[in-house]
Amino acid sequence: KINPDRLWDSLMEMAKIGPGVAGGNNRQTLTDEDGEGRALFQRWCEEAGCSMGLDQMGNMFARREGTDPDALPVYVGSHLDTQPTGGKYDGVLGVLAGLEIIRTLNDLGVKTKHPIVATNFTNEEGTRYAPAMLSSGVFAGIHTQDWAYDRVDAEGKTFGDELKRIGWRGEEEVGARKMHAFFELHIEQGPILEAEGKDIGVVTHGQGLSWTQVTVTGKDSHTGSTPMPLRKNAGLGMARILEKVEEIAWSHAPHAVGAAGHIDVYPNSRNVIPGKVVFTVDFRSPELAVIEDMEARLRFEGQKIADDMGMEIAFEKVGGFDPVAFDESCVSAVRDAAERLGYSHMNLISGAGHDACWINRVAPTAMVMCPCVDGLSHNEAEEISKEWAQAGTDVLMHAVVETAEV
Amino acid sequence: KINPDRLWDSLMEMAKIGPGVAGGNNRQTLTDEDGEGRALFQRWCEEAGCSMGLDQMGNMFARREGTDPDALPVYVGSHLDTQPTGGKYDGVLGVLAGLEIIRTLNDLGVKTKHPIVATNFTNEEGTRYAPAMLSSGVFAGIHTQDWAYDRVDAEGKTFGDELKRIGWRGEEEVGARKMHAFFELHIEQGPILEAEGKDIGVVTHGQGLSWTQVTVTGKDSHTGSTPMPLRKNAGLGMARILEKVEEIAWSHAPHAVGAAGHIDVYPNSRNVIPGKVVFTVDFRSPELAVIEDMEARLRFEGQKIADDMGMEIAFEKVGGFDPVAFDESCVSAVRDAAERLGYSHMNLISGAGHDACWINRVAPTAMVMCPCVDGLSHNEAEEISKEWAQAGTDVLMHAVVETAEV
Ligand SMILES: NC(=O)NCCC(=O)O
Ligand SMILES: NC(=O)NCCC(=O)O
Repeated sequence: KINPDRLWDSLMEMAKIGPGVAGGNNRQTLTDEDGEGRALFQRWCEEAGCSMGLDQMGNMFARREGTDPDALPVYVGSHLDTQPTGGKYDGVLGVLAGLEIIRTLNDLGVKTKHPIVATNFTNEEGTRYAPAMLSSGVFAGIHTQDWAYDRVDAEGKTFGDELKRIGWRGEEEVGARKMHAFFELHIEQGPILEAEGKDIGVVTHGQGLSWTQVTVTGKDSHTGSTPMPLRKNAGLGMARILEKVEEIAWSHAPHAVGAAGHIDVYPNSRNVIPGKVVFTVDFRSPELAVIEDMEARLRFEGQKIADDMGMEIAFEKVGGFDPVAFDESCVSAVRDAAERLGYSHMNLISGAGHDACWINRVAPTAMVMCPCVDGLSHNEAEEISKEWAQAGTDVLMHAVVETAEV
Repeated sequence: KINPDRLWDSLMEMAKIGPGVAGGNNRQTLTDEDGEGRALFQRWCEEAGCSMGLDQMGNMFARREGTDPDALPVYVGSHLDTQPTGGKYDGVLGVLAGLEIIRTLNDLGVKTKHPIVATNFTNEEGTRYAPAMLSSGVFAGIHTQDWAYDRVDAEGKTFGDELKRIGWRGEEEVGARKMHAFFELHIEQGPILEAEGKDIGVVTHGQGLSWTQVTVTGKDSHTGSTPMPLRKNAGLGMARILEKVEEIAWSHAPHAVGAAGHIDVYPNSRNVIPGKVVFTVDFRSPELAVIEDMEARLRFEGQKIADDMGMEIAFEKVGGFDPVAFDESCVSAVRDAAERLGYSHMNLISGAGHDACWINRVAPTAMVMCPCVDGLSHNEAEEISKEWAQAGTDVLMHAVVETAEV
């Protein structure tokens, strides 16, 4: 069993870097704070006897040697970057649980045949640089590295430049390393486990996602002196499309969700009718056909709204992944571990995207989930109990060690 | 008659300061560029033999002496600040027309009994610091200076600090000077004069305005893992209210307009359901009762929408002025001047707010308007012809000189 106090202390120590304004964290990818968090993780890993690998996307790999020099490592991890108003556990728990496993195996003097590698993937959140899970995506061959480097943030800074600036661009070719398996522990970020009173979610599938960036172009003009019939109010166009997004998602509920989290209005002045609004619609479903239907309806209904208002509209897909079925034997390893340790558990479909969803393309992969209070995440008030963290990490360790073979 | 080429050259020279991205200007109030524009105006005024007064709100007063030491001055002017994506004429034409009148009177050797003062009022646009017409409002006793100094921009900088920083806070008590009359030339910012083929708008009234800042508070949470029934999507709440704003304004058309130009979404991340949206609704009408009705309905309908969605809503009035009737004898001076000079003209209600609307409270006031292409303003593509500028400034000069008595 892992040491829950040590794990918790590490979580609280990491949360001191890039504090938010309401008890959570703002440690967005490739900021100075991200660099500080990485340095702390590296120090801890080295203190635990690991060697640190760093690839050209800034992905970090802390390796504990195995007994068989030819055996591929078992990877375990998640991400250290957070939302602008994020919690202390989203991603961080999965990375520090990987470290806690290594610390525990050290304490117990347990040797595994396969090496174990605690992993931190760069830019999982996708807030500063869309899409989410960018670096695990490059690792899995979904995106090219050049394309990833060219992503720009709201201030026009590129991913490549910022990675270099914070000093965490490594030499290693991305995706060159082969994995025996990959495991990721993550908080559920939804309400099901808590409602069902289960300690552990055995994640069998992940729902798919589509991010469509919509640009509505009207005409900026004076709010006072432009008569109503002559207006081309892009803000109103956006409002009508948001209502449709809600309607489209509900038409597939409970097998779909939809919303726009990102909305930028131009020029955003109280007495200027918005001439342009750019916003991103996030649709998700465990069924690919449902995602495709929602995407198509968004484009159709959006075009209709723009046409009716005499405005221009453009759609760009800025992120997406298909629904995922995790590796059956890895999933079984998780379920068996929960069973063996006596934790209550249930199967779960992940509502969020995770690095594991991409890594699943190149290695046998599974996920462990633990509950979070009120299902709340992407919110500074995100909370879990030490017991939930302990149960999740125990199950994770047993699945990892089982797969890495003692 | 004024010198149209000299006026036009000055307009183009001023437009070089704080250029926009699409041919217009971004010379927002109390920025370095605003300071540069002021310095240029001061130099021109001094070259024209004027002495410059500066009050504690940064309002500038360039005085050409009259023959009667006891006669109160006739003021003429507008504002040099622009929208973030503003045009080259909105406000600027009115200030530089004041200067052009003084230059022309100098050329002709005409002396007036009353001094003539070319005026630049600080922060007319209200984009960086709400409300609009802030400094003419303090001048007219509508707002206290302390309250004005405490206004903050989006970055948390106060009006008072920024005025001091750019070096344009004067010593003179605001509103201490008394005016014999005030005249303001402005582009129409609407389509009526061009459509009717008239050179001159004789502004008899100004419509009133109400700015209500609305804050919808839901709950930020994960766009993927939060089930539809558990969402409190503040962005959707905003969208529903925007649709109501449109409906409310149309219900009073053509005697009212309404829109939201300013919308800020928090935390504005693609995979976070908006937990808070702050936006400002701009309602206008020439009838006070209509404005009051629209404001009340916004609060009622907004509350209902928020209640239905289980969210919080707050309303704050951040700007407003009642409909204005300009001074009859000043209005007649404008109409008579247009008639005498042979320019086609018509009565007009100003759709926008202007410094003249506040100054009208403390001095006999009127406005002259000239057409602008397609009625477009608060847009970098705002355009007028040299002939329109000339006609407006000619009429302005004759009304001013008539009132200042030769
Ligand atoms: N786990 C998580 O919040 N990932 C971000 C990608 C997503 O939006 O699902
Ligand atoms: N003229 C002008 O655009 N003034 C700004 C105040 C308003 O919004 O009407």
